[in-house]
Amino acid sequence: MNTDILITDISLPEPSAQQKIRKNCCLAIQGDTISRIGPATKFADVKARIAVNGQNCLALPGLINTHGHSAMTLFRGLADDLELDQWLNENIFPAEAANVTPEMVYWCSKLAAAEMILSGTTTVADGYFYENEAARAFVDAGMRAVTAQAIIDFPAPGIPDPTKNIASAEHFIDLWQDQNPLIVPAIFAHSPYTCNNSTLQAAKELTVQKNVPLFIHVAESRAEPNMISNIQGRSPIKHLDSLGILDPSTICVHCVWVDEEDLEILAERGAKVTVCPQSHLKLASGMAPLESMLKKNIPVGLGTDGPASNNSLDMFREMDICAKVQKIRFLDPVAIPASEILGMATSGGAAVLGLADKVGSLVPGKKADIILVNCNTPHLQPMHSSDLLVYAAEGADVQSVFINGIPVLQNKNFLPFDLADTSRRVRRLAEKLYPGFSIQGT
Amino acid sequence: MNTDILITDISLPEPSAQQKIRKNCCLAIQGDTISRIGPATKFADVKARIAVNGQNCLALPGLINTHGHSAMTLFRGLADDLELDQWLNENIFPAEAANVTPEMVYWCSKLAAAEMILSGTTTVADGYFYENEAARAFVDAGMRAVTAQAIIDFPAPGIPDPTKNIASAEHFIDLWQDQNPLIVPAIFAHSPYTCNNSTLQAAKELTVQKNVPLFIHVAESRAEPNMISNIQGRSPIKHLDSLGILDPSTICVHCVWVDEEDLEILAERGAKVTVCPQSHLKLASGMAPLESMLKKNIPVGLGTDGPASNNSLDMFREMDICAKVQKIRFLDPVAIPASEILGMATSGGAAVLGLADKVGSLVPGKKADIILVNCNTPHLQPMHSSDLLVYAAEGADVQSVFINGIPVLQNKNFLPFDLADTSRRVRRLAEKLYPGFSIQGT
Repeated sequence: MNTDILITDISLPEPSAQQKIRKNCCLAIQGDTISRIGPATKFADVKARIAVNGQNCLALPGLINTHGHSAMTLFRGLADDLELDQWLNENIFPAEAANVTPEMVYWCSKLAAAEMILSGTTTVADGYFYENEAARAFVDAGMRAVTAQAIIDFPAPGIPDPTKNIASAEHFIDLWQDQNPLIVPAIFAHSPYTCNNSTLQAAKELTVQKNVPLFIHVAESRAEPNMISNIQGRSPIKHLDSLGILDPSTICVHCVWVDEEDLEILAERGAKVTVCPQSHLKLASGMAPLESMLKKNIPVGLGTDGPASNNSLDMFREMDICAKVQKIRFLDPVAIPASEILGMATSGGAAVLGLADKVGSLVPGKKADIILVNCNTPHLQPMHSSDLLVYAAEGADVQSVFINGIPVLQNKNFLPFDLADTSRRVRRLAEKLYPGFSIQGT
Repeated sequence: MNTDILITDISLPEPSAQQKIRKNCCLAIQGDTISRIGPATKFADVKARIAVNGQNCLALPGLINTHGHSAMTLFRGLADDLELDQWLNENIFPAEAANVTPEMVYWCSKLAAAEMILSGTTTVADGYFYENEAARAFVDAGMRAVTAQAIIDFPAPGIPDPTKNIASAEHFIDLWQDQNPLIVPAIFAHSPYTCNNSTLQAAKELTVQKNVPLFIHVAESRAEPNMISNIQGRSPIKHLDSLGILDPSTICVHCVWVDEEDLEILAERGAKVTVCPQSHLKLASGMAPLESMLKKNIPVGLGTDGPASNNSLDMFREMDICAKVQKIRFLDPVAIPASEILGMATSGGAAVLGLADKVGSLVPGKKADIILVNCNTPHLQPMHSSDLLVYAAEGADVQSVFINGIPVLQNKNFLPFDLADTSRRVRRLAEKLYPGFSIQGT
């Protein structure tokens, strides 16, 4: 067999109860697709154009970050350790009003894409304003992305007149639908407290018509259920359900403050969920009832949220914290073992984003979104269990990354674009927020 | 002025409310000591034997890990996601009985030292059996350590007869006291539920006589207060107090299940505390009342605990999780800002270990335990606030490390010993636990 890329001498997590690891494996990539994977002994006949030595590496499906606002790298650490209201209304919203431009979205999303690729994420679900620029950035980074144009009932970056927010989203979808194999356009309706009922319904209608996903922040803060209940007479989830918003192409982001009835509704409607544990901790939103969600077979993905609320886009860190935090919800050390968390960050995320047929696992026929994790470091010794990927590995252990069959990180060398130039451009944009701040030069 | 080492072009966190950063600074090391630090303009007269370029780096005092069991790297990930009792009694204790030898403690502690140095830790408080071997490992790694010989009322590695545990600890202290500038010997009495009252009192008496610290695990699990109360008639902290154990040279490790009265006692006695947030989460112990401790001015340090309970020794990860978890204790995003967490991991840790006059801050006269954090990475852009050290930096960002004036990590090159050889030896020891496991070769 002839193939484009052959990765040799890799190890693979065995999807068994013991989280064992299979050694001496190979993986072949033909075009954008995994063509063969398994023990090295079955690759004797394979001739490849490009050979990649995977010694000391575990190969994993690229991690899938199911919620982020990439352009907010500009606001990373802008307002830490504040009350949510003060954080959002006194800091983030004014900073966005003053700083969000098409140029800012392009360069700051590019920086985020580099950060994600360097830490092993190959697919991100992004939601922001000027999302056309974010999509361009992901294409330039060679990164797979579900890019969702934001809709909110206030004057917003690029949409000064909120009555045009649906039309603007439609235009965005038309621009990107079926245009690039890496990009799936979508809509991100900000929340039930910033979008009125007719906006939410129009957004849903548009996503149904265009057959694209709809993202919405919902039930994030402790205050939200009361706030929605006071106005709409029901819980945030029930409110969305009453509007006909919940179906298998809707992704409810956060879902921290949901009860068993809310979860039943999500399960019945086939709606998807994304939790962002680090953001939920840092903004003191709470701990999402992840165990109940998984018990009800609700597809759940893991998201980093934006760099202003986390402040890192490293999905290894997100997995670790997610696993650990669930154990103190009910002081149960058995809650959600590491292997399930790894599943959420890979196949689970793919299912949430409607990409299960394309990515999320390393099987022939799926797109070649692959990461190689270097295990030859002190903190991954002895590497006898794939649990260590959750509890000890970190983004910096990622040595090589392939997306859609293309190498984008090769032995820690970032290939898609000049990273120093992108960093410099983001620092120049940040100079307005933090005059004279840069320690890395401008 | 002539000096041994001059680090130029570094930035320093400004210890102000805004977590600002001072740029264009220098730091001079003479022998084992910081001789000058400040703006580059004040270094025109300095001539150095060795010049170190700190471009793009933030200089910090080396991080101080106030609790660990380094040799347990062998058991990293041995038994994840289990009930505490099953974890300890069915997995860790039997594995220790079968595997802990002087050779194991030496090589596995060496591996841990490398992991810690690579992630910016310059001082560790270690407690284990065959602690003489751990001390040798830290000396060979050039790492500062408070090494505490473990005492427990069961037959233990190296002390088959528990009636000899105090004598064995005394012998260890005599071997190491004032022998090496990097090593402070100490005693680690395992816990109030594994050491009887006379053992605890004898251990305290010995530490007073020798003027060394006493460590003890206390109030870790939810079950412990009842267990101790049923036997001793009082809470674990009150029990230790009734035995006269609590004073400024005693370090109470964990203190998850302590009430306000317990904390008052700790504050009155001047006893120190170490919390291990990641271990507390992973083993579902709970969340320590850190805010109350700090309000009562109890000196609190941050520890990783052993690699079997965490499973990483990266103090950046520990800081991040500590900061975030405290915010959900009472759903308060303002709780314990990042700057205080960074303080706990540096000057706070030094105070806990009785090393405040030596390390924990970058001031002239203190020992030169210094780390350089490379900020020229996507996840630390824009680097305008030292908060990012807690919420976004990771161990792998550490570029260079000096301990006691000696470079031990130089532009990511680990200098003290052959790391590949040490990893290989740990893998050989691990082969007994996980036959045929190693993906890194033997």
